[in-house]
Amino acid sequence: MKPIQVGLLGIGTVGSGVFNVLQRNHDEIRRRAGRDIAVTMVADLDETRARAVVGDQVAVVKDAREVIANPDIDVVIELIGGYGVAKTLVLEAIAAGKHVVTANKALLAVHGSEIFKAAADKGVMVAYEAAVAGGIPIIKALREGLTANQIQWIAGIINGTTNFILSEMRDKGLDFDVVLKEAQRLGYAEADPTFDIEGVDAAHKATLMSAIAFGVPVQFDKAYVEGITKLSSIDIRYAEQLGYRIKLLGITKRTDKGIELRVHPSLVPAKRLIANVEGAMNAVVVHGDAVGTTLYYGKGAGSEPTASAVIADLVDIARLEGAAVAHRVPPLAFQSSTLREAGQELPVLPMADITTSYYLRMRVADEAGVLAKVTGLLAGAGISIDAVLQREADEIGGEGSTQTDLIILTHETREGDMDKALAEIQGLPTVLAPITRIRKEELN
Amino acid sequence: MKPIQVGLLGIGTVGSGVFNVLQRNHDEIRRRAGRDIAVTMVADLDETRARAVVGDQVAVVKDAREVIANPDIDVVIELIGGYGVAKTLVLEAIAAGKHVVTANKALLAVHGSEIFKAAADKGVMVAYEAAVAGGIPIIKALREGLTANQIQWIAGIINGTTNFILSEMRDKGLDFDVVLKEAQRLGYAEADPTFDIEGVDAAHKATLMSAIAFGVPVQFDKAYVEGITKLSSIDIRYAEQLGYRIKLLGITKRTDKGIELRVHPSLVPAKRLIANVEGAMNAVVVHGDAVGTTLYYGKGAGSEPTASAVIADLVDIARLEGAAVAHRVPPLAFQSSTLREAGQELPVLPMADITTSYYLRMRVADEAGVLAKVTGLLAGAGISIDAVLQREADEIGGEGSTQTDLIILTHETREGDMDKALAEIQGLPTVLAPITRIRKEELN
Repeated sequence: MKPIQVGLLGIGTVGSGVFNVLQRNHDEIRRRAGRDIAVTMVADLDETRARAVVGDQVAVVKDAREVIANPDIDVVIELIGGYGVAKTLVLEAIAAGKHVVTANKALLAVHGSEIFKAAADKGVMVAYEAAVAGGIPIIKALREGLTANQIQWIAGIINGTTNFILSEMRDKGLDFDVVLKEAQRLGYAEADPTFDIEGVDAAHKATLMSAIAFGVPVQFDKAYVEGITKLSSIDIRYAEQLGYRIKLLGITKRTDKGIELRVHPSLVPAKRLIANVEGAMNAVVVHGDAVGTTLYYGKGAGSEPTASAVIADLVDIARLEGAAVAHRVPPLAFQSSTLREAGQELPVLPMADITTSYYLRMRVADEAGVLAKVTGLLAGAGISIDAVLQREADEIGGEGSTQTDLIILTHETREGDMDKALAEIQGLPTVLAPITRIRKEELN
Repeated sequence: MKPIQVGLLGIGTVGSGVFNVLQRNHDEIRRRAGRDIAVTMVADLDETRARAVVGDQVAVVKDAREVIANPDIDVVIELIGGYGVAKTLVLEAIAAGKHVVTANKALLAVHGSEIFKAAADKGVMVAYEAAVAGGIPIIKALREGLTANQIQWIAGIINGTTNFILSEMRDKGLDFDVVLKEAQRLGYAEADPTFDIEGVDAAHKATLMSAIAFGVPVQFDKAYVEGITKLSSIDIRYAEQLGYRIKLLGITKRTDKGIELRVHPSLVPAKRLIANVEGAMNAVVVHGDAVGTTLYYGKGAGSEPTASAVIADLVDIARLEGAAVAHRVPPLAFQSSTLREAGQELPVLPMADITTSYYLRMRVADEAGVLAKVTGLLAGAGISIDAVLQREADEIGGEGSTQTDLIILTHETREGDMDKALAEIQGLPTVLAPITRIRKEELN
């Protein structure tokens, strides 16, 4: 069969990984794919950098549209990132009849419906294994490996930067700001780390997994997004004492009422495998009704791990190029004719309607009756308590201190009920500071 | 598209799981597959049992050949097990032009080459996701998710029975025989547990993973197989003190000289995720040159987890039925025309030529100079030492004891060199009992 010719838009970290791995493992990849796969054209604003990576045998241009206009190119890989020019170029590549591979979670989480529709109309494939959890083949597991299942929930450590920061905060007992600076110095966090530390990147990925798990459109605008910037190392320590680790999780869950789609710090039992995923590594737990709990672990970013996912998509495309659409895996896992409309049947639930358990930390006056009052208000809201940890006042404020920390773990409850109960508790004169509330997931 | 009609050979634990999950999740599976998948005929020697599972709407027969002869059946699922009648029926189903799905690792590890050749000649698909690690989509990850990579090594907990036994031995400090009886009582071990506890089942699965990772034929006859029956709880305890867990691993590794293919108990650093896989769960670590280390975890057996894998294969077949062979994933991951012959290029290495590190336990006389002699012999063989643990004689043999345990962890060495060194050490008059030697894998 004729070789698959690939055009690369953007040859930075991931793009050079794709080029290098395709070169290095060329024979092995051809033995699997049944045909040659070759990058024959590269577009990058920095032509010198591009030329340094690809050498003399590959066409290098500045204008991505030259790649798209090249009739010999079968597949365009978009590695530019962001919603702007990347969107335009992806839609133009589709319009030109090219298959598209992208690692761009932001683009797909926000504009996925438009892009997949354009691809379906044109009859081309859009593949995005690299968009979620880097080299871990989680999209393939969800779309193909677990097709027997009603997926019930997914919870993932899907942002390496924040997991690195949380691991360091726990290991070294340091505060967020200190560790963030260290992460930036080591290259684990970007100069502007907002998308990572505020949970936006994880929410993009959770949005994609939610769509392919439940057969709903991508709905990033309905995701709840909370980052790790307000996490205090004291909560990491208390959680540890109670047998939990704090991780930034991307969670999506199917309930009778709809879908939960949320990113926030979560307590996870320390004995779960995912609680022991450290540093910049990623892991995704998927629970299906037939298979039970499964977990997928690996590097979530980096040049060659991400390239591994991009090339897996290329091999899939190489194999299915020329086959009828019915022989392909639908881009969102479900046949597009059966995708639910946004909000129909399985709407994304507002946070007040999600159900989870909680870790609460309250700075309270060290006097009789405080615990009784607090637990009384929780009981009145129908919230039952799993565990209580009360520190000695001396430990908290030094000798003679009149304040102490009260830590409560609750059983599952509706978040709306928790909001109300917390408002009441916060109003108690013996509660001396804003209450810290962190959600807790059992993941079993 | 017309429904895919499935005939089931054998409706025991897994077969009824397949039937029930297909019924329960029928709509969801159709939305993914793009067409109906229905079990329309079942063969089982126990027709009453079969009828109790499938009700009145499905044909039930005693003779599997009636299913194979039925021209309406597109796919035959073989769930009989073993090498005997299962092999005959699989080959007959292929000859009749049926696609085959099987969970039968023994059959494929031993007769896979013959079966895949027959399927290729006839142009039908043979799928076997359920044959390795139950519900974990590890075959898909290896064959499709990691196609960019030169796979370098795989190490897996791929037998739930032995992992359950080892977990119990460690948790409760009990000996193998006691825990085996408990496992049999709980249904985690069969009445005749030989295939599990002697490592044969794990070796079948490792053989399959080795073939699809490295593009070599299945070569079960060349696998080294050692079970857990001789493991003592004292070694589990010593390993723990040194920061390791003992797991029965199926290992396959590519080296410059050939392929390692071996199943045996292994020390694994306690901090690795796979060291923390407990009870009957399975996990497989795959290391690729681009992606680095990845891990896949889930239930390795049981009715619905195994059914999850069988049905994933059915959906793949439903999608690709009618497509040209070039559009399918090759059964052994590499295009059959590029498969290496057994022994050619990448032969399976004899154990003397593998390289690993070791845990050694020696019962020695508690007298001066023993450690020097032992370590001298190791050094003479070019084997360097990573750690030494020597117990107080009193701890081992009671007060006044003249014997003690010497535990040594070595760095990597050729097994042949270790064999020679151990023979010499065993000959020392101060070494009072057979030396225990357990291999150690760092898995990083």
